[in-house]
Amino acid sequence: MTAYDDLMAFQRETEALAQIAGRLGWDQETMMPRGAADQRGEEMGAMEGVLHARRTDPRLADWLEAAEPEDDEAHAQLRLIRRSFDRATKVPADLAQALARVTSTAQGIWAEARAAEKIGDFLPTLAEVIALKQQEAAALAQGGDLYDALMDDYEPGATAASTAAMFDRMRPRLVRLRAAVLDKPAPAPLNGHFGEPAQLRFSRDLAARFGYDFTRGRLDLAVHPFSSGSGNDVRITTRVVETDPFNCFYSTIHEVGHACYELGIDPDYLLTPLGNGASMGVHESQSRIYENQLGRSPAFTGWMFRQMLDRFGDFGVSSPEEFTRIVNRVQPGFIRTEADEVHYNLHVMMRFDLERALIRGDLQVADLEAAWNDRFAADFGVAVDRPAHGVLQDVHWSCGLFGYFPTYTLGNVYAGCLHQALRAALPDLDDQLARGDVTAATGWLRENVQRHGGLMAPRDVITQACGFAPTEAPLLDYLDAKFGALYGL
Amino acid sequence: MTAYDDLMAFQRETEALAQIAGRLGWDQETMMPRGAADQRGEEMGAMEGVLHARRTDPRLADWLEAAEPEDDEAHAQLRLIRRSFDRATKVPADLAQALARVTSTAQGIWAEARAAEKIGDFLPTLAEVIALKQQEAAALAQGGDLYDALMDDYEPGATAASTAAMFDRMRPRLVRLRAAVLDKPAPAPLNGHFGEPAQLRFSRDLAARFGYDFTRGRLDLAVHPFSSGSGNDVRITTRVVETDPFNCFYSTIHEVGHACYELGIDPDYLLTPLGNGASMGVHESQSRIYENQLGRSPAFTGWMFRQMLDRFGDFGVSSPEEFTRIVNRVQPGFIRTEADEVHYNLHVMMRFDLERALIRGDLQVADLEAAWNDRFAADFGVAVDRPAHGVLQDVHWSCGLFGYFPTYTLGNVYAGCLHQALRAALPDLDDQLARGDVTAATGWLRENVQRHGGLMAPRDVITQACGFAPTEAPLLDYLDAKFGALYGL
Repeated sequence: MTAYDDLMAFQRETEALAQIAGRLGWDQETMMPRGAADQRGEEMGAMEGVLHARRTDPRLADWLEAAEPEDDEAHAQLRLIRRSFDRATKVPADLAQALARVTSTAQGIWAEARAAEKIGDFLPTLAEVIALKQQEAAALAQGGDLYDALMDDYEPGATAASTAAMFDRMRPRLVRLRAAVLDKPAPAPLNGHFGEPAQLRFSRDLAARFGYDFTRGRLDLAVHPFSSGSGNDVRITTRVVETDPFNCFYSTIHEVGHACYELGIDPDYLLTPLGNGASMGVHESQSRIYENQLGRSPAFTGWMFRQMLDRFGDFGVSSPEEFTRIVNRVQPGFIRTEADEVHYNLHVMMRFDLERALIRGDLQVADLEAAWNDRFAADFGVAVDRPAHGVLQDVHWSCGLFGYFPTYTLGNVYAGCLHQALRAALPDLDDQLARGDVTAATGWLRENVQRHGGLMAPRDVITQACGFAPTEAPLLDYLDAKFGALYGL
Repeated sequence: MTAYDDLMAFQRETEALAQIAGRLGWDQETMMPRGAADQRGEEMGAMEGVLHARRTDPRLADWLEAAEPEDDEAHAQLRLIRRSFDRATKVPADLAQALARVTSTAQGIWAEARAAEKIGDFLPTLAEVIALKQQEAAALAQGGDLYDALMDDYEPGATAASTAAMFDRMRPRLVRLRAAVLDKPAPAPLNGHFGEPAQLRFSRDLAARFGYDFTRGRLDLAVHPFSSGSGNDVRITTRVVETDPFNCFYSTIHEVGHACYELGIDPDYLLTPLGNGASMGVHESQSRIYENQLGRSPAFTGWMFRQMLDRFGDFGVSSPEEFTRIVNRVQPGFIRTEADEVHYNLHVMMRFDLERALIRGDLQVADLEAAWNDRFAADFGVAVDRPAHGVLQDVHWSCGLFGYFPTYTLGNVYAGCLHQALRAALPDLDDQLARGDVTAATGWLRENVQRHGGLMAPRDVITQACGFAPTEAPLLDYLDAKFGALYGL
């Protein structure tokens, strides 16, 4: 056994234990009886303790020192292990524990404050979270930019400055498109009742059609849909609103995108550091291209319209064109997770600017609500009516997830690039989508993105797949073209 | 922090991790996609490695040495921790690993041999398992009886000699009762179709009626019903055969008995060694008294008959008396898990004698099938027609579970004792059962047995609850009286 072999054997067990921790999270959101919550917290704490001890095990330093990688794959494995070890050992144990403790209670405090619409109940806790995240960022950054250090957890190699520059280029075009679309009459929303069993049946068909492998996963209900797991056990969830079937169908397709990424990774990487997606941004590129560029394309929604007529009977929509406009209905709204393609990135950009200012110390929590509401009014032209529609809507900050929000828009940008390359590679894609056939598209994504797992840096994955370095232009061009056509701009 | 506090804090994390491992087992039997099996094996292996390292952690020896228990409860905690530590450290690591490896593949080999009815395919593996179990027993027994050492894992303090003596006293009376009953005409079996949704609805009602707390558990389907977990997350499973609703209902009540034991333990013992049942035998006493002495009593089945008429309509049974006889139908059969109350313990006793001989080396695997078939013919008066109906029917030996079978009959014996004490404590029990009201009975069991968890040795739990030391007489008297009345003996 070489040092590399020893290291990989140790790492394999760590990855296996991490899968168990992830599956406990899945259980918690789908199966766990509610009376088990406190006990589960203690179980998760014990599991995190085991994982933390392994991630900071001093033998890792020796193995990393002695290991001699024989190929690119081994180089990449070592790069990821070193990255994880450096991160885990840079943060003092007492700080890591304080963060775990505070964020675990902060989530409950946030949920109660949101339900009561009392932002003041949450702000002291948020201030505590931010102070700890600033300390953590300082430990990680070692003199560099604090926000970069946090963002690096989710999007390795991305910097706040380059992201901000890209967002600044995107924002005027999105604001302009938004205003032009809202000047036109919007289609009426769907009006009908769509039973849960039939929604779930169609969801399962959609999942299978988009390449989800039910022998290596399962579909359940959850309040907030998510995908969970790697390798051969990748589970997805959806939700059902009986007046709004698109909620269910597009949640499913979105999570199928995430799940297919994990399921599509080279099986040789199973339970190794390479056996996970390259970053949150690349992950989101898969969920978004499945959901939007493919699933909400006029070609595919035409097929979906006929399916829904077969499954639900007449629901008052007279043509595939009308159906497509309803699916792609643009309307102002307070809530990020319900936003359409035109509005979505504007939600992300304001969070990115606000959280950068919070971490930098340029914005204090006492001024956060006003800053949020001002920015929202500027970008969306609407006054926030209550905290749950504003600064209290997202769970992220209570969990300490600073630097995560921008990966949503990076994912959309990557999806835009991949979509351009996909269209070039598959000239008859619309003919296929019009038959409800997504096989070639998902096959191209698996071959060019998914199978590589963590082998390359995020931007390199996209660059290699597309033949060009990622920029915002393809996404913005796609949005202008699609919504220009739908709204007759 | 005293040494005792340090020890208990460490132990609490171990118990929490053991709960996680248990829940993975639940997931595997109820939720896991089939393509995940190999990956799950690796995850479980990593988890077992973590648990084994904790159970043999050298700090345990120091803490156990230095700890000064302040009360009976602390004494009992230390007793159980010392027991686990001694056991874990007595078995050499390479032997423990070999056992884990061989038994994990043996289960698959057994399942295939059973499906193919080829006992020869399983015997070499079984010989390997037995050789390793003999080594393990020798390491544990340190000069004592090998089988005692194995049995001690499941029923601390029980010995093979005293168990054999009791079984020898029981067997003639059971054989005599069996012969007398089979001389009489048997009731016709149930004949009808009972839909799955209605069976599951009634199962849920039965579970709640027997005291199962759905806020701390859940009911799912599994091929082989089981109960899983401790503390505030104790899940049960059942199965549905649409022509045989009793399979579902009594599987549910049986697992509810196991689950209520865990749920009924003093909450102060949560995630400590005391927070589990006292032994497999005491556990089985709870599942059996719920299922048989309560659930199959003429009083309760009378209530159940009316419920089933309400829920399923007329199903061709004309009176509660006829219904009770069908529920308690005695018939010869090859399969232990399908056996009625009269036959069940005869199945257990032959396994006990055979496995003792195997461990002692008095019986070789080459002669096992003949020994099984001879004994079966002697006790049941029928020739075994094929291996799946004989020596290949149970999974236990492939898993290395030698010394486990006798706990089933010990559980029945304990249930007989508890039932006698329960009847004395609740003179109007039959009136309650006739109303479908099990509250007082399960309350008595919770108060006198369940809440103590692992505080006392198994026999002491029963002795304290009953006011007398456990013997086989109450069970045998109960069986004679019940089946004498049902069959007019």
